[in-house]
Amino acid sequence: MAYFNKRYHPPGTAPGTLRELPPSLDQPVHVRQVRYSRAAVKVNTETGALPLAPSTEIEGVTWLHVQGHPSRQLLTEIGERYQVHPLALEDIDNTGQRPKVEAFDRQVFAILSVPRFSDGRVEVQQASCVLGKGLVLSFCGGTEDPFLPVLKRLQDGASRFRSRGADYLLYALLDTVVDQGFPVLEAFGLELEELEEKILLRPSRETLPHIHAVKRELILLRRMLWPQREVLNALVREEQDLIKDDTRVFLRDCYDHTVQVMDLLETYRDMSASMLDIYLSSVSNRMNEIMRVLTVIATIFIPLTFIVGVYGMNFGANTKSPWAMPELNWYYGYPLIWLLMLAVAVGMMIYFWRKRWL
Amino acid sequence: MAYFNKRYHPPGTAPGTLRELPPSLDQPVHVRQVRYSRAAVKVNTETGALPLAPSTEIEGVTWLHVQGHPSRQLLTEIGERYQVHPLALEDIDNTGQRPKVEAFDRQVFAILSVPRFSDGRVEVQQASCVLGKGLVLSFCGGTEDPFLPVLKRLQDGASRFRSRGADYLLYALLDTVVDQGFPVLEAFGLELEELEEKILLRPSRETLPHIHAVKRELILLRRMLWPQREVLNALVREEQDLIKDDTRVFLRDCYDHTVQVMDLLETYRDMSASMLDIYLSSVSNRMNEIMRVLTVIATIFIPLTFIVGVYGMNFGANTKSPWAMPELNWYYGYPLIWLLMLAVAVGMMIYFWRKRWL
Amino acid sequence: MAYFNKRYHPPGTAPGTLRELPPSLDQPVHVRQVRYSRAAVKVNTETGALPLAPSTEIEGVTWLHVQGHPSRQLLTEIGERYQVHPLALEDIDNTGQRPKVEAFDRQVFAILSVPRFSDGRVEVQQASCVLGKGLVLSFCGGTEDPFLPVLKRLQDGASRFRSRGADYLLYALLDTVVDQGFPVLEAFGLELEELEEKILLRPSRETLPHIHAVKRELILLRRMLWPQREVLNALVREEQDLIKDDTRVFLRDCYDHTVQVMDLLETYRDMSASMLDIYLSSVSNRMNEIMRVLTVIATIFIPLTFIVGVYGMNFGANTKSPWAMPELNWYYGYPLIWLLMLAVAVGMMIYFWRKRWL
Amino acid sequence: MAYFNKRYHPPGTAPGTLRELPPSLDQPVHVRQVRYSRAAVKVNTETGALPLAPSTEIEGVTWLHVQGHPSRQLLTEIGERYQVHPLALEDIDNTGQRPKVEAFDRQVFAILSVPRFSDGRVEVQQASCVLGKGLVLSFCGGTEDPFLPVLKRLQDGASRFRSRGADYLLYALLDTVVDQGFPVLEAFGLELEELEEKILLRPSRETLPHIHAVKRELILLRRMLWPQREVLNALVREEQDLIKDDTRVFLRDCYDHTVQVMDLLETYRDMSASMLDIYLSSVSNRMNEIMRVLTVIATIFIPLTFIVGVYGMNFGANTKSPWAMPELNWYYGYPLIWLLMLAVAVGMMIYFWRKRWL
Amino acid sequence: MAYFNKRYHPPGTAPGTLRELPPSLDQPVHVRQVRYSRAAVKVNTETGALPLAPSTEIEGVTWLHVQGHPSRQLLTEIGERYQVHPLALEDIDNTGQRPKVEAFDRQVFAILSVPRFSDGRVEVQQASCVLGKGLVLSFCGGTEDPFLPVLKRLQDGASRFRSRGADYLLYALLDTVVDQGFPVLEAFGLELEELEEKILLRPSRETLPHIHAVKRELILLRRMLWPQREVLNALVREEQDLIKDDTRVFLRDCYDHTVQVMDLLETYRDMSASMLDIYLSSVSNRMNEIMRVLTVIATIFIPLTFIVGVYGMNFGANTKSPWAMPELNWYYGYPLIWLLMLAVAVGMMIYFWRKRWL
Repeated sequence: MAYFNKRYHPPGTAPGTLRELPPSLDQPVHVRQVRYSRAAVKVNTETGALPLAPSTEIEGVTWLHVQGHPSRQLLTEIGERYQVHPLALEDIDNTGQRPKVEAFDRQVFAILSVPRFSDGRVEVQQASCVLGKGLVLSFCGGTEDPFLPVLKRLQDGASRFRSRGADYLLYALLDTVVDQGFPVLEAFGLELEELEEKILLRPSRETLPHIHAVKRELILLRRMLWPQREVLNALVREEQDLIKDDTRVFLRDCYDHTVQVMDLLETYRDMSASMLDIYLSSVSNRMNEIMRVLTVIATIFIPLTFIVGVYGMNFGANTKSPWAMPELNWYYGYPLIWLLMLAVAVGMMIYFWRKRWL
Repeated sequence: MAYFNKRYHPPGTAPGTLRELPPSLDQPVHVRQVRYSRAAVKVNTETGALPLAPSTEIEGVTWLHVQGHPSRQLLTEIGERYQVHPLALEDIDNTGQRPKVEAFDRQVFAILSVPRFSDGRVEVQQASCVLGKGLVLSFCGGTEDPFLPVLKRLQDGASRFRSRGADYLLYALLDTVVDQGFPVLEAFGLELEELEEKILLRPSRETLPHIHAVKRELILLRRMLWPQREVLNALVREEQDLIKDDTRVFLRDCYDHTVQVMDLLETYRDMSASMLDIYLSSVSNRMNEIMRVLTVIATIFIPLTFIVGVYGMNFGANTKSPWAMPELNWYYGYPLIWLLMLAVAVGMMIYFWRKRWL
Repeated sequence: MAYFNKRYHPPGTAPGTLRELPPSLDQPVHVRQVRYSRAAVKVNTETGALPLAPSTEIEGVTWLHVQGHPSRQLLTEIGERYQVHPLALEDIDNTGQRPKVEAFDRQVFAILSVPRFSDGRVEVQQASCVLGKGLVLSFCGGTEDPFLPVLKRLQDGASRFRSRGADYLLYALLDTVVDQGFPVLEAFGLELEELEEKILLRPSRETLPHIHAVKRELILLRRMLWPQREVLNALVREEQDLIKDDTRVFLRDCYDHTVQVMDLLETYRDMSASMLDIYLSSVSNRMNEIMRVLTVIATIFIPLTFIVGVYGMNFGANTKSPWAMPELNWYYGYPLIWLLMLAVAVGMMIYFWRKRWL
Repeated sequence: MAYFNKRYHPPGTAPGTLRELPPSLDQPVHVRQVRYSRAAVKVNTETGALPLAPSTEIEGVTWLHVQGHPSRQLLTEIGERYQVHPLALEDIDNTGQRPKVEAFDRQVFAILSVPRFSDGRVEVQQASCVLGKGLVLSFCGGTEDPFLPVLKRLQDGASRFRSRGADYLLYALLDTVVDQGFPVLEAFGLELEELEEKILLRPSRETLPHIHAVKRELILLRRMLWPQREVLNALVREEQDLIKDDTRVFLRDCYDHTVQVMDLLETYRDMSASMLDIYLSSVSNRMNEIMRVLTVIATIFIPLTFIVGVYGMNFGANTKSPWAMPELNWYYGYPLIWLLMLAVAVGMMIYFWRKRWL
Repeated sequence: MAYFNKRYHPPGTAPGTLRELPPSLDQPVHVRQVRYSRAAVKVNTETGALPLAPSTEIEGVTWLHVQGHPSRQLLTEIGERYQVHPLALEDIDNTGQRPKVEAFDRQVFAILSVPRFSDGRVEVQQASCVLGKGLVLSFCGGTEDPFLPVLKRLQDGASRFRSRGADYLLYALLDTVVDQGFPVLEAFGLELEELEEKILLRPSRETLPHIHAVKRELILLRRMLWPQREVLNALVREEQDLIKDDTRVFLRDCYDHTVQVMDLLETYRDMSASMLDIYLSSVSNRMNEIMRVLTVIATIFIPLTFIVGVYGMNFGANTKSPWAMPELNWYYGYPLIWLLMLAVAVGMMIYFWRKRWL
């Protein structure tokens, strides 16, 4: 994830302005229009089709889903057809928004983040939903449509789902988005356990960027998921005609899921911070051990080298003085020197051993 | 404890879905049905028995306890017989939930965590309770039944307990679960004291994984126990017909226990964080001491080795020049060199001593 | 940014006192007077012109903008003409204020911070706005006028903007100021990514002041931007006749932007703190690696030097004893010594290799 | 202080259960019964005496104080005589409770912690108070009675104290307990200042356990004192017939003292955390200085030792070649070598000096 | 500042007790009595004068200021004359109080802290104010009277100030005290900038105590200033007859100043914590650089010393074996050895250079 991934207008732009897409965002866009009532479900995925008019049947629900970043023209068209507030349209267009919920005159507008985990990296897409009377509009970035299971339930399921109204559809969409957090966090959990083992058993230089990557992804992911709690909480509590009381029970369940996701995320952040500390200690422990043994070896040889140096002095050539290195001429001089050196070496080793430096 | 220990459905699954158990969770399940009133207690532990119908007596209480992970079929059956909300059933099935309390139409549903300490590791089981009119359902994972003392009190006790109603039974169950925290924290307290002594007196390489393990268990345990405060608080405060006022006094006492448990847990977390710092300082202190002494030894011998090297030079062979190492031919040359070296060594040691480097 | 950048009076000065400008702040001041209604816009930028009287038309709006630090005389004049509260005038004069909003009798007074990013450093100017009936006064420090795009929209735009009243103008100004945060944070995001790469791949001594600079700027920037949240929140929520309900929708959008700005800022602070840790680990990893290899080299040569020292001893000159270094006279003595040394060196390298110290 | 110092029942025990004392807690218990009214004070300290009946005079107050851990029998007796709630009795018995206040039917029950400082260690005793109509029961662990000054004031004082009622007596007891915090914190303040001086001027290995001990005591003390704030706050604010309005002024003053105690404690915690950082830096600074000087010495001698080694080579014995170490035969060869070595040593020292490594 | 600077009574002392001053606090005390109304100001600074009776004129204000620690007798006298609550008198006497505000029957009592910066150290005095009807009592420790500018404004100013009543006088005093924070924080800001430069450019051993001193002063200062926010906030919000509504506007401005002071203080604390980290990194960076270069030098000479050691061996004396160091007898033996050593040294330097260790 990039540190800054928000589209924004230059300061001073009029609110509600939509912009042409930069080429980098110009990917294929898929529009799916679903209209259902207790009795039946009709699905229309022709890309070029005009958006349907809002359902006029009393109990029917119209669901329009746009997968990929819609063009300025498409967005304007949808906005006009369904009377979406310009500020909502701007937020749909400027992806990278913080999750939020906003109540406009006759519509509720919600933005959530859809996380996905692949190869140790997390990718986040913005999902925006508009709830109107008998109407749900949903928009999701990227190429993978997270709402296919909901469509399937609509088509497969008994008439229960279909008869519950647009607010239940909104819940189903939000729930799907929020539950995307669990597989991502499960993957992170496994990665943390793997990392933990590596750190304690065989820390290497490659472990450091790995820890940093995990920490970074968790910090950025937290930023995208943390506000989802407030979003669901607001939906559960706010006085809102569009959301019926028996849907609120389900939204509360969904709110619980956001709390669980954040709980796990916070725990993981704690653990990853702790792991950096442990890594540092572990590396420095290993290093200390090496340095200690090597220094001890060096220190044992230093007096020995001094001794052999003494007998390398050329005083022995002075034959006039009995003080001039008489040891050189002793019968057992050479073996005695070896004994002396052995004694010094063993003595030092015993000393080091006793002090537990070895 | 694993970092991620929650069962969850694939995103997009319909709410209230129950799943077949994975083989790993397929352990023996024990069902115990208790029906009591002021006068008597009847206990039925036949595994295959069908759940009893809810008590029809005005003051009787039916208590159904399931030990182990119930199968999909058993759960569905219980859910239908006692009209448990599908979302509650889903949470009973998907263990690893965050503790929470939920009020459904005519029932209160609570999830708590039962910690157990064995061999320096903590294991947490999910305990779920449903309180209805004259009805308590309880579910606990694992093989050890934490509610046996409550059953014993029901059977032994005077009629006081039996005449207090289902809400008091719920309190007795919750209190038992919450109090499981004390022995666990006592064990942690002892472990921390032991660890502290080790760190200050004889830090070793094995201490590091030990500190990490304690810290990790505390972080994970905190995640499972922290929300219990809110659960008890909600039960004490919420307007709820099912819970009588004189039971609330007891629930408040139980709430106090959750606060004490969290207080201790937070203190322990602080202490374990502090211990890592102290460990690092302690290790680095020991290391510094070793390095300092060894370096001082090496430094004392370096000038001496230089001196003996000087007299190992072959200038003495040049007999034509009086400048060519006349020392070699002095009568007391050799002893004088030893005196020089002794003076250098003693001088350096005094210098180091004065500077407090030794 | 300096740590302390607030102008203040000596303690005990009467409230509302204005002071002569210090020479350092004596920069050219530009006054722009705009009067508009649905129909037309009149702009007057003559520097010497007296402030206009407040508009008397029912739907007209007077906007007076002062760019640069106004002189004591100009401020007094404006204050009297538009009946600005003396405490507000004092806060306009004493730049470096914390963003805040204050409701006086018939006016709302708001202070915001305008950040700008140039060359890795952030500069913050104080923007003050006064909202009265049909009146907006705005003041901005520095030489760059951030409100030019708003003027342009007034002049270009359809009559929509012009007919919305003074509160919408205030919103437009605040929105422009708040949105200045996004380009600044985008620049910081890029800098952090660059820094991150540097830290992980090639940490150098110059990286440290760089990390510190980023951290410092983020801390100081946070101080200036954090209170903007409260300011916008207060404007959205407070009961205030001067702000109409349909402007509140826009202010709420603007509030969301302040939340996003702070969110990013907090995330960046987390990241920059984390980067210092990673830098330290990275540098110490590199250092350890160097020290290890060098120490291993030294350690291998120490026993070898000892061996050659042994055969530099002058015992061989003692021809009377068969114990006096007979090796020197062996036929293959010299090559054997080389073999011995080779064996020692290879043996140690194998040992180090096995212990993974190499 | 131990990490875990709470007595608790095995999970599942019935609420209100009292237990036989373990032998370790079986210390002498002193019971003091005081009955006073405006006119007079009667004190009865006979250990074996039965508790008095509650006072029947309208304005008289009965104060029963138990010093030391009461036996199960004594507690039961007191509980029955004064109708104390079983949960309160249980909390009096299970010492190590978190400070709290609980309102039962006609009584207020409060638990506080009495800290004492001796020899750098803090000891905490539990003090429990029950306030009824015309009745105060107080219990304090340990052997030192903290309430003697209150008794003295009752006996010495004018009739003011005696005529104020039981709630004022409760205040006097709580105030005495809370004020015990000041001498403890004063002692900690002195210890911190001493520690600070040690750390900055002459950090040693013994300083580390000292810092840890202070930090540990502060963390544990905080746990016992922090909740006292809430206790006093609750007493000041809660609607409670037993506490008269003019006593509340005094309780508010006592609340202020708890706030001051916590404020100091938090500041000390900050300081002790900061001291560990400073200690680490200080030790590593000292170490670095030693290592640097020693390494510089070693580095200066290394090239010199190399030079003398060169002239220890036996090439000079080869008399056939003019290339074979002709220096050995120069007239001034030996002194020249000394000059060379002097030049190298001085050159390196100048280089190190310039680089500020010396 | 000392860690503990609070005067307190022994636990168990009766509330409202005043004590004789310890000799250390027995400094000269100056009493100034001011009585003013719209028309005139009368000042009486005779030290021995008895306190004036409260003003009986409807609009007159009596202001009594005591500079220095008042004696027990003086305080008792003032307390009786103006009917100050004993608890307030006790708090005036026991300096080192936490800032607070307390509403007694007909008086408001406020304590603030007056910080002063001199020579890098902060000194804090307690200022206490009592507001009654037509009456303000003020007490300030130390020898410097902070309220002289207020007196001057009273004497110089137009009748505006004099006609505003006692609550405005209280505001003027509080504002003066709160604004003392700005010069102190400005001084800290400059010190931090200086420290920052030192840390990044030339960290030395003296920098560490400096950082610690700044951090310590900030922590202690924060403790004394933090509660001033609440004090001003309480004065602005509380229902209080003694404070008129148009004074509240000014108190709100004063509250803003306390917020700004705390904001800066928090930022400085963040910066000083960050500086310790940077200092550590900076020192360790410098150290690493030294160690690296020195170790590289040592490592280059180690193989060279080994080589010259080889040719110092006495095998050459064995003239019977052609294997006995034939190099010694080669015609170009000696220059070839030099070449070999040069090659080794250059090779190692190239290797180190490539690895960027030099």
